[in-house]
Amino acid sequence: MQTSPQIQLINYSRENYTELQTDSTEEIVNSLNQNGGLVHWVNIQTLDRHVVKAAEKIFKFHQLTTEDILNTNHLPKLDVFEDHCFLIMKIFTYSEGKKRFDYEHVGVLLFEDSLLLLQEYPGDIFDTVRLKIKEGSGSIRKGKSDYLFYVLIDTLVDHYLEIMEEMRERAERMENSLLEGEDSVTLNEIIKMKRQMNRMRKFTFPLITEVKKIKTEPPSFFDKSTLTYMEDVFDHLYLLNTNFEYLRERLMDLINLYHYKLSENTNQVMKVLTVVSTIFIPITFVAGLYGMNFQDMPELGWKYGYPAAMGVMAAIAGGMIYYMRRKGWM
Amino acid sequence: MQTSPQIQLINYSRENYTELQTDSTEEIVNSLNQNGGLVHWVNIQTLDRHVVKAAEKIFKFHQLTTEDILNTNHLPKLDVFEDHCFLIMKIFTYSEGKKRFDYEHVGVLLFEDSLLLLQEYPGDIFDTVRLKIKEGSGSIRKGKSDYLFYVLIDTLVDHYLEIMEEMRERAERMENSLLEGEDSVTLNEIIKMKRQMNRMRKFTFPLITEVKKIKTEPPSFFDKSTLTYMEDVFDHLYLLNTNFEYLRERLMDLINLYHYKLSENTNQVMKVLTVVSTIFIPITFVAGLYGMNFQDMPELGWKYGYPAAMGVMAAIAGGMIYYMRRKGWM
Amino acid sequence: MQTSPQIQLINYSRENYTELQTDSTEEIVNSLNQNGGLVHWVNIQTLDRHVVKAAEKIFKFHQLTTEDILNTNHLPKLDVFEDHCFLIMKIFTYSEGKKRFDYEHVGVLLFEDSLLLLQEYPGDIFDTVRLKIKEGSGSIRKGKSDYLFYVLIDTLVDHYLEIMEEMRERAERMENSLLEGEDSVTLNEIIKMKRQMNRMRKFTFPLITEVKKIKTEPPSFFDKSTLTYMEDVFDHLYLLNTNFEYLRERLMDLINLYHYKLSENTNQVMKVLTVVSTIFIPITFVAGLYGMNFQDMPELGWKYGYPAAMGVMAAIAGGMIYYMRRKGWM
Amino acid sequence: MQTSPQIQLINYSRENYTELQTDSTEEIVNSLNQNGGLVHWVNIQTLDRHVVKAAEKIFKFHQLTTEDILNTNHLPKLDVFEDHCFLIMKIFTYSEGKKRFDYEHVGVLLFEDSLLLLQEYPGDIFDTVRLKIKEGSGSIRKGKSDYLFYVLIDTLVDHYLEIMEEMRERAERMENSLLEGEDSVTLNEIIKMKRQMNRMRKFTFPLITEVKKIKTEPPSFFDKSTLTYMEDVFDHLYLLNTNFEYLRERLMDLINLYHYKLSENTNQVMKVLTVVSTIFIPITFVAGLYGMNFQDMPELGWKYGYPAAMGVMAAIAGGMIYYMRRKGWM
Amino acid sequence: MQTSPQIQLINYSRENYTELQTDSTEEIVNSLNQNGGLVHWVNIQTLDRHVVKAAEKIFKFHQLTTEDILNTNHLPKLDVFEDHCFLIMKIFTYSEGKKRFDYEHVGVLLFEDSLLLLQEYPGDIFDTVRLKIKEGSGSIRKGKSDYLFYVLIDTLVDHYLEIMEEMRERAERMENSLLEGEDSVTLNEIIKMKRQMNRMRKFTFPLITEVKKIKTEPPSFFDKSTLTYMEDVFDHLYLLNTNFEYLRERLMDLINLYHYKLSENTNQVMKVLTVVSTIFIPITFVAGLYGMNFQDMPELGWKYGYPAAMGVMAAIAGGMIYYMRRKGWM
Ligand SMILES: [Mg+2]
Ligand SMILES: [Mg+2]
Ligand SMILES: [Mg+2]
Ligand SMILES: [Mg+2]
Ligand SMILES: [Mg+2]
Ligand SMILES: [Mg+2]
Ligand SMILES: [Mg+2]
Ligand SMILES: [Mg+2]
Ligand SMILES: [Mg+2]
Ligand SMILES: [Mg+2]
Ligand SMILES: [Mg+2]
Ligand SMILES: [Mg+2]
Ligand SMILES: [Mg+2]
Ligand SMILES: [Mg+2]
Ligand SMILES: [Mg+2]
Ligand SMILES: [Mg+2]
Ligand SMILES: [Mg+2]
Ligand SMILES: [Mg+2]
Ligand SMILES: [Mg+2]
Ligand SMILES: [Mg+2]
Ligand SMILES: [Mg+2]
Ligand SMILES: [Mg+2]
Ligand SMILES: [Mg+2]
Ligand SMILES: [Mg+2]
Ligand SMILES: [Mg+2]
Ligand SMILES: [Mg+2]
Ligand SMILES: [Mg+2]
Ligand SMILES: [Mg+2]
Ligand SMILES: [Mg+2]
Ligand SMILES: [Mg+2]
Ligand SMILES: [Mg+2]
Repeated sequence: MQTSPQIQLINYSRENYTELQTDSTEEIVNSLNQNGGLVHWVNIQTLDRHVVKAAEKIFKFHQLTTEDILNTNHLPKLDVFEDHCFLIMKIFTYSEGKKRFDYEHVGVLLFEDSLLLLQEYPGDIFDTVRLKIKEGSGSIRKGKSDYLFYVLIDTLVDHYLEIMEEMRERAERMENSLLEGEDSVTLNEIIKMKRQMNRMRKFTFPLITEVKKIKTEPPSFFDKSTLTYMEDVFDHLYLLNTNFEYLRERLMDLINLYHYKLSENTNQVMKVLTVVSTIFIPITFVAGLYGMNFQDMPELGWKYGYPAAMGVMAAIAGGMIYYMRRKGWM
Repeated sequence: MQTSPQIQLINYSRENYTELQTDSTEEIVNSLNQNGGLVHWVNIQTLDRHVVKAAEKIFKFHQLTTEDILNTNHLPKLDVFEDHCFLIMKIFTYSEGKKRFDYEHVGVLLFEDSLLLLQEYPGDIFDTVRLKIKEGSGSIRKGKSDYLFYVLIDTLVDHYLEIMEEMRERAERMENSLLEGEDSVTLNEIIKMKRQMNRMRKFTFPLITEVKKIKTEPPSFFDKSTLTYMEDVFDHLYLLNTNFEYLRERLMDLINLYHYKLSENTNQVMKVLTVVSTIFIPITFVAGLYGMNFQDMPELGWKYGYPAAMGVMAAIAGGMIYYMRRKGWM
Repeated sequence: MQTSPQIQLINYSRENYTELQTDSTEEIVNSLNQNGGLVHWVNIQTLDRHVVKAAEKIFKFHQLTTEDILNTNHLPKLDVFEDHCFLIMKIFTYSEGKKRFDYEHVGVLLFEDSLLLLQEYPGDIFDTVRLKIKEGSGSIRKGKSDYLFYVLIDTLVDHYLEIMEEMRERAERMENSLLEGEDSVTLNEIIKMKRQMNRMRKFTFPLITEVKKIKTEPPSFFDKSTLTYMEDVFDHLYLLNTNFEYLRERLMDLINLYHYKLSENTNQVMKVLTVVSTIFIPITFVAGLYGMNFQDMPELGWKYGYPAAMGVMAAIAGGMIYYMRRKGWM
Repeated sequence: MQTSPQIQLINYSRENYTELQTDSTEEIVNSLNQNGGLVHWVNIQTLDRHVVKAAEKIFKFHQLTTEDILNTNHLPKLDVFEDHCFLIMKIFTYSEGKKRFDYEHVGVLLFEDSLLLLQEYPGDIFDTVRLKIKEGSGSIRKGKSDYLFYVLIDTLVDHYLEIMEEMRERAERMENSLLEGEDSVTLNEIIKMKRQMNRMRKFTFPLITEVKKIKTEPPSFFDKSTLTYMEDVFDHLYLLNTNFEYLRERLMDLINLYHYKLSENTNQVMKVLTVVSTIFIPITFVAGLYGMNFQDMPELGWKYGYPAAMGVMAAIAGGMIYYMRRKGWM
Repeated sequence: MQTSPQIQLINYSRENYTELQTDSTEEIVNSLNQNGGLVHWVNIQTLDRHVVKAAEKIFKFHQLTTEDILNTNHLPKLDVFEDHCFLIMKIFTYSEGKKRFDYEHVGVLLFEDSLLLLQEYPGDIFDTVRLKIKEGSGSIRKGKSDYLFYVLIDTLVDHYLEIMEEMRERAERMENSLLEGEDSVTLNEIIKMKRQMNRMRKFTFPLITEVKKIKTEPPSFFDKSTLTYMEDVFDHLYLLNTNFEYLRERLMDLINLYHYKLSENTNQVMKVLTVVSTIFIPITFVAGLYGMNFQDMPELGWKYGYPAAMGVMAAIAGGMIYYMRRKGWM
């Protein structure tokens, strides 16, 4: 486990910025009570029950919310309460080489002048956001906590879109390999990718409808101009959904393609077997015929018996070859 | 059949707790008429028609409700009446070793200050709930009958989620076995699991929409704070539904995977047959040729006739091997 | 055709019961005009155009209704008019042995104090209802025509559920036979059952939504307490629909199972062919080699030539057997 | 092309009937301006741009309507305007023997006292309607233009239902042939029928929702009693839709059946090959063994060597036959 | 890159027409400020960030709109703002010979008296529109900017329908080739076409719902008569959607057809192998039998031994041929 303090506080306004690493509840409460139009971003990088329970007491959210934060199997959702919002989301770690496709459970609580971000493991995709706030670049410092909330969701959706794009590219590479008749793509690889895609879909799909709640029932402190920015997020979520459907169909096509290529190969193999057998089995019989040891087989004594037998065999083989060429099997 | 009394009464409030095993209608009526803010939980562990009819008389519910309780094939549903609710649900018994995947028919009637639980067989998943009430742990004793109703549904949904999780793990194990080329997974096993999943789905799916009625048309005596707890149940029902869809797709993928692996195996088998036949059938013919008994076969008298024939056969075999290597069949 | 009168009248109230077989329009009109709170149930067991047209005149329904009664291909539907309802339904005759799966076209017209039942052929599923009325058992005699209407629909839906159950059992038996590797199930049998199921589904499915109209736009004379009973019918229709979906998926699984078992069988057959061929084709070649008649084949004169050749053949066969055992084909 | 006048006028009321073939715009305008409660049915049996443009001027409809009439690829639709309706529909020509499955583009414009029918080619399915009007049979002469509009749609839907029925019968015949193991059904035939069905579906499906607009937003001059008749059309459109779904599933089942029968046949063929090979390949090896020319093969000199060899071969063949009978392959 | 000015201005009214190629912001602003009921059509044929940013300043649209214009992966959409609309669409380049199926990202901004068209690359499908404006033909010059907007969308939808038609024809040609047993169609070709269709569908499908927004929430300056024209576009979008579904099903049928034809071919190949093997393997055994070298084989000395053996072999071969003819394999 972490030995460094697991709670980080970022207080900012257009003019000010302070940052604080602490494990003391008191310090956090003091920080939150500071005035001067500050936005307080509290980062908790552990889902230790005691820490979350402490946060529950400080921020006064419902114990069911605490349960949802601690239940790392919970699907994404957005609950809008009178004076705060609660969002569950998943951060993914995807890499082609990796065996397991992992996800991390993340909870976000948005209040009028503060935002609480709780996550399973240290480290996340929001470091560029923290840097922008520190440096005062971009427009986050100009906004309130709702704008920060938008920026976090926007970053998350971009994170999803990137992973989707990587998956799509990998699927396309596999498809091209199969189309070009290469042996490098195995069924196992395709099946495993389909599994990863299904799992990612399960943990992002609910977000698409859930985030829309911010539009239909926005919390009172949510700025109208931020809602305009949220529209941009909805567009990207719609793209995400479209891309999922597209990838899903692509993977199914890929599996079918694999199957068809296998059928084609079996068909090829059978053709070669049939061609060879059909030519040689009948003439082997003719050879066997004149290998019989009957005392009275006149052909064996003929002068041109041997060449005649050879001719018969050549004729049979030729007829078979002609037949199979016409069928298109040779 | 049971010889012990089939009816159990639990009367509780924040301060009091009494428990009673009885077969006497009178005792039950007396107990129900007790005052002092008690919640009465009546447990009937049989669906004997006479017992249910007696309960109908005591609790004054509709005879159609009685019919639904007795009809063990009835799908889950929630009926909200003026002064009570009626819920049908199924408890499952699932174990990998078991041949049959069984379910038990359960009816719940919720009144303002009492709850009637009727079930097909003795024994159920609610014993921890009874223990918590007895010991006064948790918050059930602080609530009314509607909170008890929530706790029972919550326990049921958790019961479903656990079974789903077991099924998912089993499907994943089978999938991994197939991917690693093991022989241990049979088609019959997969098909039987799909059957179990379909059956479980049939008897839980309706619950997802039915339970939502408690939100859209809550009975008058249902507490607002309990509705907040019901929201938590809806989230879990949504997860349940998602997990079903996920498992369903997984089982279909599993069947397909089995089929593809079989096709791959047939393809392998055919390749070996073709390789062996294609090499040996033509040279067997050559051998047969020189096994013929024609009197006038000059090659047979040649000094190097035998090694020459061997050479021809080696050349033919070599050519075939070269061809099939290039095709990737050897 | 029938020579007995095709029209039967049942007049009943809580206290009275009269029954009448007639072909006279006048008698029917007289009967209908009788007072005293009687319910008049008119049974017409033919769809002869003249008879239906006569009924149209007596009961004054729309000529389009007449057309629908006479059109035996019409889908089930419920039309609610100002002073009457019109229901089309199908009665099925299903038996495992029967070649054809037949259905009968039935029209029901419900008026405030009478009910007209018209059907294609004599004999139906409602004889127990008629008996209950005659004997005054059950609660039909206590109700009005709307309650009789409910009883008829309830009987019909139970009739459907029974047929579904028979189908499900038959499908399960076939599935079990396939899983146990028995030969008794043929593809034709499965396909024919799917056809029957589709046909039954076509002629019951519309009923599910149509009957709900009685709730959304009940006729003025429809009693509120009867609507409560109709809710019970809706539950059963929902079960019917669920069972259809379940059977449909089961039959598709069954067909797939048949296909997979066939593929497994082909795979088995190919393995045996490959095993036998792979062992014997190479050693047959070796035997053929020493069957050649070259004058100068030193091996033939060796003392241990024969045992040596046998040894070579045993070695080849052994190698092949080892290879195929490792592949799991033997 | 036609040389006879392409425009036909039918003017009728309950008492009067006149008919007119003309190419003169003036005559048409005069006819339309006639009073006396006449309904004017104008038939234009060409989609020549100049003729349609002339009609646009006379009847004063929008130029977009003209474009839709001229665009023979347009899907069916119903546009309801303030003082008129515009309907696009397709008439089909289907015959089993015919190579192409053709359709004809038809536009209908309904005004308060006139109806304009425009179609691609001369000849249509409405001749019985024209005859009924001429002879005054049926109830068309008693109605206004809206009733004529209903009669035309009703005739069209009956036309569709008939074609569907022919298709269904043909599919059933093919299915029965396949089930009885006949060779007469080819894949090409099934595929072509699926194509025809898809095409017909494409050009009738939109009608089902479009015609419903007449109910939700009826034009002001549309009689209420005619709407009752339209309900009958909706019922038939619903049947049409149901029949399409039914046929669609049937054709898919048919294709699958074809595939399964083919797989069964391949399985049969492989079994015969395996049976013959498995019996004869091993014993042919034994025969080859004693065809070897080694000088020192003691068995060859044994007295009962030949019968012994025959016995060995019979034993091998018998063993193979026993094995394959037990497998059910013989 | 282009060296000519990337911005083109077209100013028109019913009477006037001016055209301007420029890179100067000032010129554009001056042009836009011109009065006299002119419509200003600004064409920007690059998505260079600086150019788009400059347009943002001139036309005062939101920076999120700028981002959407620059994001060439954005799905089609229509945003309706208070005083302007923003449309994203894709122009496709499809040709059978081409390897890649490309699309171009296009943004349209519609204001009360101006329209801004931004596109990725120079050259588009709207040149006929520009020509019609210049020549004053058609009715564009009579309308305002909203009518121009309609004309552009109408042209785009016609462009999509044309590409769909080409795809459909190509799919039909491939299908016919397969049905006629030609070898020219490869699986790769079908798969690639399915890919193209999916991609095109992804980038046109959203348009169908998005464009409808112009009807449900039209901008204040949008003329009612233009909305009538938009209805025509909706009809064509509906046709587009129908055609997509139709093509999609067709391509799936095509892939299945390919698979069935392959299965039929494999079945044919196996039949030939089985026929040849079944006839010759048994008689080759008989020949081998009499090729054995036992000293004591009485048949070998019989006078008619050889013809008798030939007779036996002919009988065996004849029996096999008879059996296989009856099976329909020969
Ligand atoms: Mg986890
Ligand atoms: Mg983390
Ligand atoms: Mg973004
Ligand atoms: Mg971005
Ligand atoms: Mg955007
Ligand atoms: Mg939007
Ligand atoms: Mg296959
Ligand atoms: Mg049971
Ligand atoms: Mg209900
Ligand atoms: Mg129990
Ligand atoms: Mg829970
Ligand atoms: Mg729990
Ligand atoms: Mg929760
Ligand atoms: Mg919720
Ligand atoms: Mg019938
Ligand atoms: Mg009957
Ligand atoms: Mg019932
Ligand atoms: Mg019930
Ligand atoms: Mg197969
Ligand atoms: Mg045409
Ligand atoms: Mg015509
Ligand atoms: Mg009709
Ligand atoms: Mg009719
Ligand atoms: Mg009708
Ligand atoms: Mg209706
Ligand atoms: Mg691009
Ligand atoms: Mg361009
Ligand atoms: Mg157009
Ligand atoms: Mg056009
Ligand atoms: Mg149009
Ligand atoms: Mg329209």
